[in-house]
Amino acid sequence: MAKLYPDSIQNLIERFAELPGIGARSAERMAFYILASARDEAMSLAIAIRDVKKNIRACKRCFNVAEHELCHICSDYKRDNGLICVVELPRDIIALEKCGGYNGEYHVLQGRLEPSAGVGPEQLRIQELITRVAEPEVREVILALNPTTEGDITATYLIELISGLDKEVIITRLARGLASGTDLEATAPSSLEYALKGRQRV
Amino acid sequence: MAKLYPDSIQNLIERFAELPGIGARSAERMAFYILASARDEAMSLAIAIRDVKKNIRACKRCFNVAEHELCHICSDYKRDNGLICVVELPRDIIALEKCGGYNGEYHVLQGRLEPSAGVGPEQLRIQELITRVAEPEVREVILALNPTTEGDITATYLIELISGLDKEVIITRLARGLASGTDLEATAPSSLEYALKGRQRV
Repeated sequence: MAKLYPDSIQNLIERFAELPGIGARSAERMAFYILASARDEAMSLAIAIRDVKKNIRACKRCFNVAEHELCHICSDYKRDNGLICVVELPRDIIALEKCGGYNGEYHVLQGRLEPSAGVGPEQLRIQELITRVAEPEVREVILALNPTTEGDITATYLIELISGLDKEVIITRLARGLASGTDLEATAPSSLEYALKGRQRV
Repeated sequence: MAKLYPDSIQNLIERFAELPGIGARSAERMAFYILASARDEAMSLAIAIRDVKKNIRACKRCFNVAEHELCHICSDYKRDNGLICVVELPRDIIALEKCGGYNGEYHVLQGRLEPSAGVGPEQLRIQELITRVAEPEVREVILALNPTTEGDITATYLIELISGLDKEVIITRLARGLASGTDLEATAPSSLEYALKGRQRV
């Protein structure tokens, strides 16, 4: 087929098409929107992308997304630091915060055990979790991994590790009100609240 | 609700949500994708946006998108410069080029007559079209406006104007094989080819 677009438009369409859930048609529409929009408006998207990559780091305590050394949850003195809710990714925190039923802290593993993809315990923030669990104020660790095979494997691994610590700590898991095989991120806030309230001691 | 995201993530989500067809959930997913992706990859999107705003201008002849003075169609000597196909927007050219049935040139009005929105003939590239039509080599003007009320009004206006010129020129319109009320841009290439072949002399 003959060349349809000038190079810079073609390039923008291809970059948009790399985003999750964006097909060729959507990418085309988005590129033409950028083309037609005021320069300031278009640049505000470019700048927002740059700022996220420049400003966002991992919280040095829980590995959530943060704009400072500590994320907005770890630096909130009103949160209960006796509770640590362990999640795979920062977006899982968003889902849990939206349900509004939790006032403890978090720990982001930055993934889950997936030996077939080369993700072992060393690739995750597991050592840092264990260090936190050993702190005297910690009473309970809530395992909020996704209800998938890999999530279950990761939870089982963590239960063994934490149970082996020289410390009394309650380990709980979210109630399996979650629909199996789905993502925690995609679960409705009400179901998440239910799962959180019905968490069961291991 | 408590603050869910650091400011720069919130800002990026809002910017993504301004794009056409992107809801709150998609914008969130896209922002987290940017967050998780390698810095180079994320920046390549920011740079692609900047480059489009920097490099793309209107072709000085037909007002299509262009990276140089003339667009890639106007600067292609193999195109038949005796045919001018008049469209509303550059994306309409993409749709027509995809159908593969046309080898003439284009003229982009950059909109359509819409008095209620303050778009009169002076806001469109109509004077420039008339100047081109007056060129001796031009034999036919194909009106490929969208099959909508505004498109029809614009076509009627152009027919009057061109008919009043002191020059013999054939004026045609795309066959109304197009489904009324839809966008030309969203029409399947095969229907577009049919509409192009069945264009009728006014």
